[in-house]
Amino acid sequence: MFPIRIVLIDTAHPGNIGATARAMKNMGLRELHLVRPKQFPHAEATARASGADDLLEQAVVHSDLATAIDACGLVVGTSARQRALNFEPFEPRECAAALVTAASRTPAAILFGNERAGLTNSELGVCNRLVTIPTAEYSSLNLAMAVQILAYELWLITRPGSPPRPEREVPLASADEMQRLYQHLEDVFAYIDFQDRTGGGHLMTRIRRLFNRAELDQNEMNILRGILTAVQARRRPAGGKSSVAPTSPD
Amino acid sequence: MFPIRIVLIDTAHPGNIGATARAMKNMGLRELHLVRPKQFPHAEATARASGADDLLEQAVVHSDLATAIDACGLVVGTSARQRALNFEPFEPRECAAALVTAASRTPAAILFGNERAGLTNSELGVCNRLVTIPTAEYSSLNLAMAVQILAYELWLITRPGSPPRPEREVPLASADEMQRLYQHLEDVFAYIDFQDRTGGGHLMTRIRRLFNRAELDQNEMNILRGILTAVQARRRPAGGKSSVAPTSPD
Repeated sequence: MFPIRIVLIDTAHPGNIGATARAMKNMGLRELHLVRPKQFPHAEATARASGADDLLEQAVVHSDLATAIDACGLVVGTSARQRALNFEPFEPRECAAALVTAASRTPAAILFGNERAGLTNSELGVCNRLVTIPTAEYSSLNLAMAVQILAYELWLITRPGSPPRPEREVPLASADEMQRLYQHLEDVFAYIDFQDRTGGGHLMTRIRRLFNRAELDQNEMNILRGILTAVQARRRPAGGKSSVAPTSPD
Repeated sequence: MFPIRIVLIDTAHPGNIGATARAMKNMGLRELHLVRPKQFPHAEATARASGADDLLEQAVVHSDLATAIDACGLVVGTSARQRALNFEPFEPRECAAALVTAASRTPAAILFGNERAGLTNSELGVCNRLVTIPTAEYSSLNLAMAVQILAYELWLITRPGSPPRPEREVPLASADEMQRLYQHLEDVFAYIDFQDRTGGGHLMTRIRRLFNRAELDQNEMNILRGILTAVQARRRPAGGKSSVAPTSPD
């Protein structure tokens, strides 16, 4: 069907995990991933799951986020407020459409941070988009309620009889491929002796945001990796550390 | 603003009342009405309300449904499945639009029944419309989750910056006016000796469904009440019990 994962990170209350499973199953979602749940399995999770305890049994527990999203193309973070992080405004309805289109070729994921703190900057660093559920001035949605609203919007466009959604022609690059791209970039920066001049060591953070936002597909990923490999294939210029172009003609 | 009431009937779990208050406040709703809550106030309700305990404090507790909806024009019931009760299919998005339009002139209400049993037939008997939240085959939405989805759809069209909604020119008849109409009809049926021939005494149930579905406005109500009064002003024909027209010319 539509391989869309719900990823709960550092969830403190097991009841929220159960309520999330119930919310998901009502809306046809099945893939629950838990990163460092504080208490799981737990009786409170099972009680709140009601008839969705099968989703809890199949839930995959991870010790870090990378494995929870490794094969995923589109990764969407959730935030109570649109933060000033170069993320464009993105609401649940539009988000659901983007997720379903992306998931036509590669799994997609929605990340939910800890109940109090939300997603950390490092977790936001793997997100292509950031979705915010519109609320009144009092903005304090329960975690499972937020899952419910996004799952509801997904169900409206994936349920039987819904009009077909556009599919991606080329699959998105996966989250692990993105990580390898960033590692490759760091290697190349070292190789060409490119210095971080952002003040405070923000170079890689900015690079990540830029490329995450771009939602690279597989073709684009291949092109970028090819460019980086070509840079590395270049002999270092004699004399070592300069980053200017080598003088020998190609 | 938009006087839209959330009416919880025979709620068994106080936690659901608290979670409902929180769901409402996030989406700008404030009017919570509780009909025969099993336990209220209750610590679990307060805990789950989080920062929305002001809504719990202002919640109005009723011993029966009539007072909870007495001034309301549009009354919408919620049901897990579209029941075979002459109700047209009605989904949350369309329902939200209808509620906001109706509430431009008279308060509107959404009714949520007991967690296990849902709304009773008698409670459905006061509803103009029946809304069903679309779900997958597993259809077991938590009560407060159902409130959350409807409140979310309401917020999307009432939040600041939303395009203006059409307003009703004439206010809807209120639920207590509808009750007086049904009483008037019963009086007239007795007066004209009109027999219930539905088999099983369903006459008034069918009459209620018909007029509830029609969503009468104040003008129409005045016309109907005028007709009924005119019938009663007619002298009974001599000889008493016949329901044929009187023979004397008018």
